[in-house]
Amino acid sequence: MADQHIASAFDRDLEAIQARIMKMGGLVEDAIRKSAQSLEARDEEMADEVRRGDKAIDGLEELINEETARLIALRAPTAIDLRVVLSVLKISGNLERIADYAKNIAKRTGVLAQMSPVNDSAAALRRMAREVELMLKNALDAYIQRDAELADDVILRDREVDQMYNALFREFLTFMMEDPRNISACMHLHFIAKNIERMGDHATSIAEQVVYLVRGERPDDTRPKADMTSVTPIAE
Amino acid sequence: MADQHIASAFDRDLEAIQARIMKMGGLVEDAIRKSAQSLEARDEEMADEVRRGDKAIDGLEELINEETARLIALRAPTAIDLRVVLSVLKISGNLERIADYAKNIAKRTGVLAQMSPVNDSAAALRRMAREVELMLKNALDAYIQRDAELADDVILRDREVDQMYNALFREFLTFMMEDPRNISACMHLHFIAKNIERMGDHATSIAEQVVYLVRGERPDDTRPKADMTSVTPIAE
Repeated sequence: MADQHIASAFDRDLEAIQARIMKMGGLVEDAIRKSAQSLEARDEEMADEVRRGDKAIDGLEELINEETARLIALRAPTAIDLRVVLSVLKISGNLERIADYAKNIAKRTGVLAQMSPVNDSAAALRRMAREVELMLKNALDAYIQRDAELADDVILRDREVDQMYNALFREFLTFMMEDPRNISACMHLHFIAKNIERMGDHATSIAEQVVYLVRGERPDDTRPKADMTSVTPIAE
Repeated sequence: MADQHIASAFDRDLEAIQARIMKMGGLVEDAIRKSAQSLEARDEEMADEVRRGDKAIDGLEELINEETARLIALRAPTAIDLRVVLSVLKISGNLERIADYAKNIAKRTGVLAQMSPVNDSAAALRRMAREVELMLKNALDAYIQRDAELADDVILRDREVDQMYNALFREFLTFMMEDPRNISACMHLHFIAKNIERMGDHATSIAEQVVYLVRGERPDDTRPKADMTSVTPIAE
Protein backbone atom coordinates (compact mmCIF):
# COMPACT_ATOMS: atom_id res chain seq x y z
CA MET A 1 0.00 0.00 0.00
CA ALA A 2 2.50 2.54 1.21
CA ASP A 3 4.64 1.77 -1.82
CA GLN A 4 1.90 3.25 -3.95
CA HIS A 5 2.10 6.51 -2.05
CA ILE A 6 2.98 8.95 -4.80
CA ALA A 7 2.90 12.57 -3.70
CA SER A 8 0.98 13.80 -6.71
CA ALA A 9 -1.70 11.12 -6.44
CA PHE A 10 -2.23 11.99 -2.78
CA ASP A 11 -2.38 15.69 -3.60
CA ARG A 12 -4.88 15.11 -6.38
CA ASP A 13 -7.17 13.04 -4.14
CA LEU A 14 -6.91 15.57 -1.35
CA GLU A 15 -7.73 18.43 -3.69
CA ALA A 16 -10.87 16.64 -4.84
CA ILE A 17 -11.99 16.18 -1.23
CA GLN A 18 -11.20 19.78 -0.35
CA ALA A 19 -13.23 20.94 -3.35
CA ARG A 20 -16.15 19.01 -1.94
CA ILE A 21 -15.61 20.63 1.48
CA MET A 22 -15.83 24.03 -0.22
CA LYS A 23 -19.02 22.99 -2.01
CA MET A 24 -20.49 21.83 1.29
CA GLY A 25 -19.34 25.10 2.89
CA GLY A 26 -21.15 27.11 0.22
CA LEU A 27 -24.39 25.24 0.85
CA VAL A 28 -24.01 25.75 4.61
CA GLU A 29 -23.39 29.50 4.18
CA ASP A 30 -26.60 29.67 2.12
CA ALA A 31 -28.48 27.78 4.82
CA ILE A 32 -27.31 30.21 7.52
CA ARG A 33 -28.33 33.25 5.45
CA LYS A 34 -31.68 31.87 4.33
CA SER A 35 -32.68 30.63 7.78
CA ALA A 36 -32.18 34.12 9.22
CA GLN A 37 -33.76 35.87 6.23
CA SER A 38 -36.84 33.68 6.28
CA LEU A 39 -37.23 34.35 10.00
CA GLU A 40 -37.12 38.11 9.51
CA ALA A 41 -39.36 38.11 6.42
CA ARG A 42 -41.66 35.44 7.92
CA ASP A 43 -41.13 33.61 4.63
CA GLU A 44 -42.20 30.03 5.31
CA GLU A 45 -41.39 28.89 1.79
CA MET A 46 -37.76 29.93 2.15
CA ALA A 47 -37.67 28.24 5.57
CA ASP A 48 -38.94 25.01 3.96
CA GLU A 49 -36.18 25.29 1.39
CA VAL A 50 -33.59 25.35 4.20
CA ARG A 51 -35.20 22.33 5.86
CA ARG A 52 -35.27 20.33 2.63
CA GLY A 53 -31.72 21.39 1.72
CA ASP A 54 -30.26 19.76 4.83
CA LYS A 55 -30.43 16.30 3.24
CA ALA A 56 -28.02 17.32 0.48
CA ILE A 57 -25.58 18.64 3.09
CA ASP A 58 -25.79 15.41 5.12
CA GLY A 59 -25.19 13.49 1.90
CA LEU A 60 -22.06 15.51 1.17
CA GLU A 61 -20.72 14.81 4.65
CA GLU A 62 -21.21 11.05 4.15
CA LEU A 63 -19.47 11.25 0.78
CA ILE A 64 -16.55 13.24 2.20
CA ASN A 65 -16.14 10.75 5.05
CA GLU A 66 -16.13 7.82 2.62
CA GLU A 67 -13.67 9.48 0.26
CA THR A 68 -11.43 10.36 3.18
CA ALA A 69 -11.44 6.77 4.44
CA ARG A 70 -10.63 5.60 0.91
CA LEU A 71 -7.79 8.13 0.67
CA ILE A 72 -6.27 6.91 3.93
CA ALA A 73 -6.61 3.28 2.84
CA LEU A 74 -5.12 3.85 -0.62
CA ARG A 75 -2.37 6.37 0.08
CA ALA A 76 -1.50 5.61 3.72
CA PRO A 77 -0.53 9.21 4.47
CA THR A 78 1.67 9.93 7.49
CA ALA A 79 2.77 12.92 9.55
CA ILE A 80 1.49 16.25 8.24
CA ASP A 81 -0.42 14.62 5.36
CA LEU A 82 -2.33 12.48 7.82
CA ARG A 83 -3.05 15.49 10.01
CA VAL A 84 -4.53 17.30 7.00
CA VAL A 85 -6.70 14.33 6.11
CA LEU A 86 -8.01 13.97 9.66
CA SER A 87 -8.81 17.68 9.75
CA VAL A 88 -11.12 17.12 6.78
CA LEU A 89 -13.26 14.81 8.93
CA LYS A 90 -13.48 17.37 11.72
CA ILE A 91 -14.37 20.19 9.35
CA SER A 92 -17.09 18.24 7.55
CA GLY A 93 -18.49 17.39 11.00
CA ASN A 94 -18.50 21.09 11.96
CA LEU A 95 -20.26 22.01 8.72
CA GLU A 96 -22.90 19.35 9.23
CA ARG A 97 -23.62 20.65 12.73
CA ILE A 98 -23.96 24.24 11.52
CA ALA A 99 -26.45 23.08 8.89
CA ASP A 100 -28.43 21.27 11.62
CA TYR A 101 -28.70 24.51 13.56
CA ALA A 102 -29.89 26.33 10.43
CA LYS A 103 -32.52 23.64 9.90
CA ASN A 104 -33.61 24.01 13.52
CA ILE A 105 -33.99 27.78 13.07
CA ALA A 106 -36.01 27.20 9.89
CA LYS A 107 -38.34 24.85 11.80
CA ARG A 108 -39.11 27.57 14.31
CA THR A 109 -39.94 30.13 11.59
CA GLY A 110 -43.34 28.55 10.95
CA VAL A 111 -44.26 28.74 14.64
CA LEU A 112 -42.98 32.28 15.09
CA ALA A 113 -44.85 33.47 11.99
CA GLN A 114 -48.06 32.75 13.92
CA MET A 115 -47.05 34.99 16.83
CA SER A 116 -46.71 38.75 17.16
CA PRO A 117 -43.19 39.93 16.38
CA VAL A 118 -41.16 40.80 19.48
CA ASN A 119 -39.71 44.23 18.84
CA ASP A 120 -36.92 44.13 16.24
CA SER A 121 -35.41 40.86 17.51
CA ALA A 122 -35.59 39.16 14.11
CA ALA A 123 -33.44 41.91 12.58
CA ALA A 124 -30.89 41.58 15.40
CA LEU A 125 -30.78 37.81 14.86
CA ARG A 126 -30.27 38.32 11.13
CA ARG A 127 -27.30 40.61 11.80
CA MET A 128 -25.83 38.03 14.17
CA ALA A 129 -26.31 35.28 11.55
CA ARG A 130 -24.66 37.50 8.93
CA GLU A 131 -21.59 37.84 11.15
CA VAL A 132 -21.40 34.07 11.64
CA GLU A 133 -21.82 33.46 7.90
CA LEU A 134 -18.79 35.71 7.27
CA MET A 135 -16.80 33.96 9.98
CA LEU A 136 -17.49 30.63 8.32
CA LYS A 137 -16.58 31.94 4.88
CA ASN A 138 -13.27 33.29 6.20
CA ALA A 139 -12.55 30.12 8.19
CA LEU A 140 -12.94 28.04 5.02
CA ASP A 141 -10.84 30.47 2.97
CA ALA A 142 -8.20 30.30 5.69
CA TYR A 143 -8.34 26.51 5.47
CA ILE A 144 -7.87 26.33 1.72
CA GLN A 145 -5.09 28.94 1.76
CA ARG A 146 -3.55 27.64 5.02
CA ASP A 147 -3.74 31.22 6.27
CA ALA A 148 -3.27 31.12 10.06
CA GLU A 149 -3.62 34.89 10.43
CA LEU A 150 -7.03 34.94 8.82
CA ALA A 151 -7.93 32.03 11.11
CA ASP A 152 -6.73 34.02 14.16
CA ASP A 153 -9.04 36.82 13.07
CA VAL A 154 -12.03 34.46 12.91
CA ILE A 155 -11.24 33.16 16.40
CA LEU A 156 -11.18 36.72 17.76
CA ARG A 157 -14.47 37.64 16.10
CA ASP A 158 -16.27 34.82 17.91
CA ARG A 159 -16.21 37.01 21.02
CA GLU A 160 -18.32 39.63 19.26
CA VAL A 161 -20.89 37.00 18.39
CA ASP A 162 -20.92 35.85 22.02
CA GLN A 163 -21.50 39.46 23.09
CA MET A 164 -24.37 39.82 20.62
CA TYR A 165 -25.87 36.68 22.14
CA ASN A 166 -25.49 38.00 25.72
CA ALA A 167 -27.21 41.25 24.80
CA LEU A 168 -30.11 39.40 23.16
CA PHE A 169 -30.47 37.04 26.14
CA ARG A 170 -30.96 40.03 28.45
CA GLU A 171 -33.36 41.65 26.02
CA PHE A 172 -35.52 38.53 25.84
CA LEU A 173 -35.66 38.28 29.63
CA THR A 174 -36.81 41.89 29.82
CA PHE A 175 -39.50 41.38 27.16
CA MET A 176 -40.82 38.32 28.98
CA MET A 177 -40.95 40.04 32.33
CA GLU A 178 -42.66 43.08 30.84
CA ASP A 179 -45.39 41.07 29.20
CA PRO A 180 -46.02 37.33 29.75
CA ARG A 181 -47.65 37.16 26.32
CA ASN A 182 -44.10 37.46 24.95
CA ILE A 183 -42.88 34.35 26.79
CA SER A 184 -43.64 31.79 24.11
CA ALA A 185 -42.12 33.78 21.26
CA CYS A 186 -39.10 34.75 23.35
CA MET A 187 -38.36 31.12 24.24
CA HIS A 188 -38.14 30.36 20.52
CA LEU A 189 -36.16 33.51 19.73
CA HIS A 190 -33.75 32.74 22.55
CA PHE A 191 -33.20 29.26 21.14
CA ILE A 192 -32.47 30.73 17.76
CA ALA A 193 -29.95 33.16 19.27
CA LYS A 194 -28.23 30.27 21.06
CA ASN A 195 -28.19 28.24 17.83
CA ILE A 196 -26.49 31.09 15.98
CA GLU A 197 -23.99 31.46 18.82
CA ARG A 198 -23.21 27.72 18.50
CA MET A 199 -22.77 28.08 14.74
CA GLY A 200 -20.11 30.66 15.57
CA ASP A 201 -18.41 28.14 17.86
CA HIS A 202 -18.24 25.64 15.00
CA ALA A 203 -16.83 28.23 12.59
CA THR A 204 -14.25 28.99 15.28
CA SER A 205 -13.46 25.30 15.62
CA ILE A 206 -12.67 25.20 11.87
CA ALA A 207 -10.39 28.21 12.30
CA GLU A 208 -8.65 26.44 15.20
CA GLN A 209 -8.01 23.43 12.94
CA VAL A 210 -6.32 25.77 10.47
CA VAL A 211 -4.07 27.23 13.18
CA TYR A 212 -3.17 23.70 14.26
CA LEU A 213 -2.38 22.63 10.69
CA VAL A 214 -0.20 25.65 9.95
CA ARG A 215 1.56 26.16 13.28
CA GLY A 216 1.49 22.58 14.57
CA GLU A 217 0.01 23.60 17.90
CA ARG A 218 -3.47 24.36 19.14
CA PRO A 219 -4.45 28.00 19.56
CA ASP A 220 -4.09 29.33 23.11
CA ASP A 221 -6.91 27.68 25.03
CA THR A 222 -6.98 30.39 27.65
CA ARG A 223 -9.26 32.26 25.22
CA PRO A 224 -11.98 33.60 27.49
CA LYS A 225 -15.45 32.15 27.01
CA ALA A 226 -17.61 35.16 26.43
CA ASP A 227 -21.05 33.62 26.85
CA MET A 228 -21.54 34.76 30.43
CA THR A 229 -25.25 34.03 30.72
CA SER A 230 -24.68 30.70 32.42
CA VAL A 231 -22.87 32.30 35.34
CA THR A 232 -24.67 35.64 35.60
CA PRO A 233 -27.67 35.93 37.88
CA ILE A 234 -30.22 38.18 36.28
CA ALA A 235 -31.63 41.13 38.22
CA GLU A 236 -35.34 40.69 38.67
CA MET B 1 4.62 0.93 6.09
CA ALA B 2 1.86 -1.38 4.98
CA ASP B 3 4.33 -4.25 5.09
CA GLN B 4 4.49 -3.76 8.84
CA HIS B 5 0.77 -4.39 9.17
CA ILE B 6 0.63 -7.41 11.46
CA ALA B 7 -2.87 -8.32 12.58
CA SER B 8 -1.95 -8.82 16.22
CA ALA B 9 -0.05 -5.54 16.48
CA PHE B 10 -3.02 -3.68 15.08
CA ASP B 11 -5.38 -5.43 17.49
CA ARG B 12 -3.15 -4.67 20.44
CA ASP B 13 -2.95 -0.97 19.55
CA LEU B 14 -6.68 -0.79 18.96
CA GLU B 15 -7.41 -2.45 22.30
CA ALA B 16 -5.27 0.12 24.10
CA ILE B 17 -7.19 2.95 22.43
CA GLN B 18 -10.53 1.36 23.19
CA ALA B 19 -9.52 0.98 26.85
CA ARG B 20 -8.88 4.71 26.89
CA ILE B 21 -12.31 5.33 25.32
CA MET B 22 -13.87 3.31 28.15
CA LYS B 23 -11.91 5.28 30.72
CA MET B 24 -13.09 8.53 29.12
CA GLY B 25 -16.65 7.13 29.06
CA GLY B 26 -16.49 6.40 32.80
CA LEU B 27 -15.41 9.98 33.55
CA VAL B 28 -18.20 11.34 31.33
CA GLU B 29 -20.83 9.16 33.05
CA ASP B 30 -19.62 10.55 36.40
CA ALA B 31 -19.85 14.09 35.06
CA ILE B 32 -23.46 13.56 33.92
CA ARG B 33 -24.48 12.12 37.29
CA LYS B 34 -22.68 14.70 39.38
CA SER B 35 -23.90 17.67 37.37
CA ALA B 36 -27.52 16.62 37.93
CA GLN B 37 -26.96 15.67 41.56
CA SER B 38 -25.26 18.94 42.41
CA LEU B 39 -28.13 20.81 40.79
CA GLU B 40 -30.72 19.02 42.86
CA ALA B 41 -28.75 19.21 46.11
CA ARG B 42 -27.61 22.79 45.38
CA ASP B 43 -24.13 21.48 46.06
CA GLU B 44 -21.78 24.07 44.57
CA GLU B 45 -18.67 22.14 45.56
CA MET B 46 -19.74 19.11 43.58
CA ALA B 47 -20.61 21.39 40.66
CA ASP B 48 -17.09 22.86 40.82
CA GLU B 49 -15.69 19.34 40.73
CA VAL B 50 -17.54 18.71 37.45
CA ARG B 51 -16.23 21.98 35.99
CA ARG B 52 -12.65 21.22 36.96
CA GLY B 53 -12.92 17.60 35.76
CA ASP B 54 -13.64 18.67 32.18
CA LYS B 55 -9.96 19.38 31.52
CA ALA B 56 -9.02 15.74 32.14
CA ILE B 57 -11.71 14.62 29.69
CA ASP B 58 -10.51 17.07 27.04
CA GLY B 59 -6.98 15.79 27.61
CA LEU B 60 -8.11 12.20 27.05
CA GLU B 61 -9.78 13.16 23.78
CA GLU B 62 -6.56 14.79 22.55
CA LEU B 63 -4.60 11.70 23.54
CA ILE B 64 -7.05 9.35 21.83
CA ASN B 65 -6.94 11.44 18.65
CA GLU B 66 -3.14 11.39 18.64
CA GLU B 67 -2.93 7.66 19.29
CA THR B 68 -5.49 7.02 16.58
CA ALA B 69 -3.53 9.07 14.06
CA ARG B 70 -0.37 7.16 15.06
CA LEU B 71 -2.20 3.85 14.65
CA ILE B 72 -3.34 4.77 11.15
CA ALA B 73 0.16 5.92 10.22
CA LEU B 74 1.91 2.84 11.61
CA ARG B 75 -0.51 0.06 10.72
CA ALA B 76 -2.22 1.47 7.62
CA PRO B 77 -5.50 -0.32 8.34
CA THR B 78 -7.99 -0.81 5.49
CA ALA B 79 -11.62 -1.83 5.04
CA ILE B 80 -13.36 -2.80 8.29
CA ASP B 81 -10.26 -2.11 10.43
CA LEU B 82 -10.15 1.43 9.09
CA ARG B 83 -13.85 1.87 9.74
CA VAL B 84 -13.34 0.82 13.36
CA VAL B 85 -10.45 3.24 13.79
CA LEU B 86 -12.43 6.13 12.34
CA SER B 87 -15.35 5.33 14.64
CA VAL B 88 -13.00 5.87 17.59
CA LEU B 89 -12.56 9.49 16.51
CA LYS B 90 -16.32 10.02 16.27
CA ILE B 91 -16.98 8.43 19.64
CA SER B 92 -14.30 10.41 21.47
CA GLY B 93 -15.82 13.53 19.89
CA ASN B 94 -19.30 12.56 21.15
CA LEU B 95 -17.94 11.96 24.66
CA GLU B 96 -16.17 15.29 24.70
CA ARG B 97 -19.40 17.07 23.72
CA ILE B 98 -21.40 15.32 26.44
CA ALA B 99 -18.82 16.40 29.02
CA ASP B 100 -19.13 19.98 27.75
CA TYR B 101 -22.87 19.88 28.36
CA ALA B 102 -22.28 18.53 31.89
CA LYS B 103 -19.84 21.37 32.53
CA ASN B 104 -22.40 23.85 31.26
CA ILE B 105 -25.03 22.45 33.64
CA ALA B 106 -22.56 22.66 36.52
CA LYS B 107 -21.93 26.32 35.69
CA ARG B 108 -25.62 27.10 36.05
CA THR B 109 -25.85 25.38 39.44
CA GLY B 110 -24.21 28.31 41.21
CA VAL B 111 -26.66 30.77 39.69
CA LEU B 112 -29.71 28.62 40.36
CA ALA B 113 -28.65 28.06 43.97
CA GLN B 114 -29.28 31.78 44.51
CA MET B 115 -32.85 31.56 43.24
CA SER B 116 -35.98 29.97 44.70
CA PRO B 117 -36.44 26.37 43.53
CA VAL B 118 -39.09 26.00 40.84
CA ASN B 119 -41.35 23.20 41.99
CA ASP B 120 -39.65 19.79 41.73
CA SER B 121 -37.94 20.55 38.39
CA ALA B 122 -34.47 19.68 39.68
CA ALA B 123 -35.64 16.16 40.60
CA ALA B 124 -37.20 15.71 37.13
CA LEU B 125 -33.94 16.86 35.52
CA ARG B 126 -31.98 14.43 37.66
CA ARG B 127 -34.20 11.54 36.50
CA MET B 128 -33.72 12.60 32.89
CA ALA B 129 -29.94 12.77 33.39
CA ARG B 130 -30.00 9.31 35.00
CA GLU B 131 -31.71 7.90 31.90
CA VAL B 132 -29.10 9.50 29.63
CA GLU B 133 -26.26 8.21 31.80
CA LEU B 134 -27.62 4.66 31.38
CA MET B 135 -28.01 5.16 27.62
CA LEU B 136 -24.37 6.21 27.41
CA LYS B 137 -23.22 3.27 29.52
CA ASN B 138 -25.13 0.83 27.31
CA ALA B 139 -23.94 2.51 24.10
CA LEU B 140 -20.31 2.07 25.20
CA ASP B 141 -20.92 -1.53 26.29
CA ALA B 142 -22.54 -2.16 22.90
CA TYR B 143 -19.46 -0.65 21.26
CA ILE B 144 -16.95 -2.81 23.10
CA GLN B 145 -19.03 -5.97 22.59
CA ARG B 146 -20.09 -5.04 19.05
CA ASP B 147 -23.66 -5.68 20.19
CA ALA B 148 -26.00 -4.15 17.59
CA GLU B 149 -29.14 -5.17 19.46
CA LEU B 150 -28.14 -3.36 22.61
CA ALA B 151 -27.32 -0.38 20.38
CA ASP B 152 -30.81 -0.58 18.79
CA ASP B 153 -32.26 -0.43 22.27
CA VAL B 154 -30.30 2.73 23.11
CA ILE B 155 -31.52 4.36 19.89
CA LEU B 156 -35.13 3.58 20.79
CA ARG B 157 -34.77 4.93 24.33
CA ASP B 158 -33.71 8.33 23.00
CA ARG B 159 -37.37 8.96 22.21
CA GLU B 160 -38.26 8.67 25.88
CA VAL B 161 -35.66 11.27 26.74
CA ASP B 162 -37.07 13.54 24.04
CA GLN B 163 -40.52 13.10 25.54
CA MET B 164 -39.23 13.95 29.02
CA TYR B 165 -37.74 17.11 27.51
CA ASN B 166 -41.01 18.06 25.80
CA ALA B 167 -42.94 17.64 29.06
CA LEU B 168 -40.45 19.81 30.94
CA PHE B 169 -40.50 22.49 28.24
CA ARG B 170 -44.27 22.84 28.65
CA GLU B 171 -43.97 22.84 32.43
CA PHE B 172 -41.42 25.66 32.37
CA LEU B 173 -43.62 27.75 30.08
CA THR B 174 -46.52 27.31 32.46
CA PHE B 175 -44.43 28.28 35.50
CA MET B 176 -43.17 31.40 33.73
CA MET B 177 -46.64 32.49 32.68
CA GLU B 178 -48.03 31.89 36.15
CA ASP B 179 -45.40 33.98 37.86
CA PRO B 180 -42.87 36.22 36.08
CA ARG B 181 -40.54 35.86 39.06
CA ASN B 182 -39.93 32.32 37.78
CA ILE B 183 -38.70 33.50 34.37
CA SER B 184 -35.02 33.78 35.18
CA ALA B 185 -34.77 30.40 36.90
CA CYS B 186 -36.87 28.71 34.21
CA MET B 187 -34.64 30.02 31.43
CA HIS B 188 -31.70 28.32 33.12
CA LEU B 189 -33.65 25.14 33.89
CA HIS B 190 -34.86 24.97 30.32
CA PHE B 191 -31.29 25.23 29.08
CA ILE B 192 -30.29 22.41 31.36
CA ALA B 193 -33.16 20.25 30.06
CA LYS B 194 -32.07 20.94 26.49
CA ASN B 195 -28.44 20.12 27.36
CA ILE B 196 -29.49 16.75 28.79
CA GLU B 197 -31.60 16.07 25.70
CA ARG B 198 -28.53 16.80 23.56
CA MET B 199 -26.41 14.46 25.68
CA GLY B 200 -28.97 11.78 24.77
CA ASP B 201 -28.48 12.62 21.08
CA HIS B 202 -24.74 12.06 21.44
CA ALA B 203 -25.22 8.74 23.26
CA THR B 204 -27.54 7.78 20.39
CA SER B 205 -24.91 8.80 17.88
CA ILE B 206 -22.46 6.38 19.55
CA ALA B 207 -25.09 3.62 19.34
CA GLU B 208 -25.57 4.43 15.64
CA GLN B 209 -21.82 4.00 15.09
CA VAL B 210 -22.08 0.54 16.63
CA VAL B 211 -24.95 -0.44 14.33
CA TYR B 212 -22.92 0.81 11.36
CA LEU B 213 -19.82 -1.13 12.45
CA VAL B 214 -21.71 -4.39 13.01
CA ARG B 215 -24.23 -4.31 10.15
CA GLY B 216 -22.28 -2.20 7.67
CA GLU B 217 -25.17 0.20 7.12
CA ARG B 218 -26.51 3.20 8.94
CA PRO B 219 -29.58 2.73 11.14
CA ASP B 220 -32.86 3.67 9.49
CA ASP B 221 -32.74 7.45 9.29
CA THR B 222 -36.50 7.75 9.19
CA ARG B 223 -36.33 7.57 13.02
CA PRO B 224 -38.78 10.25 14.02
CA LYS B 225 -37.36 13.30 15.75
CA ALA B 226 -39.31 13.47 18.96
CA ASP B 227 -38.34 16.95 20.15
CA MET B 228 -41.48 18.64 18.89
CA THR B 229 -41.08 21.94 20.71
CA SER B 230 -39.56 23.64 17.69
CA VAL B 231 -42.70 23.09 15.61
CA THR B 232 -45.40 23.28 18.27
CA PRO B 233 -47.04 26.62 18.98
CA ILE B 234 -47.75 26.94 22.68
CA ALA B 235 -51.25 27.85 23.83
CA GLU B 236 -51.16 31.12 25.72
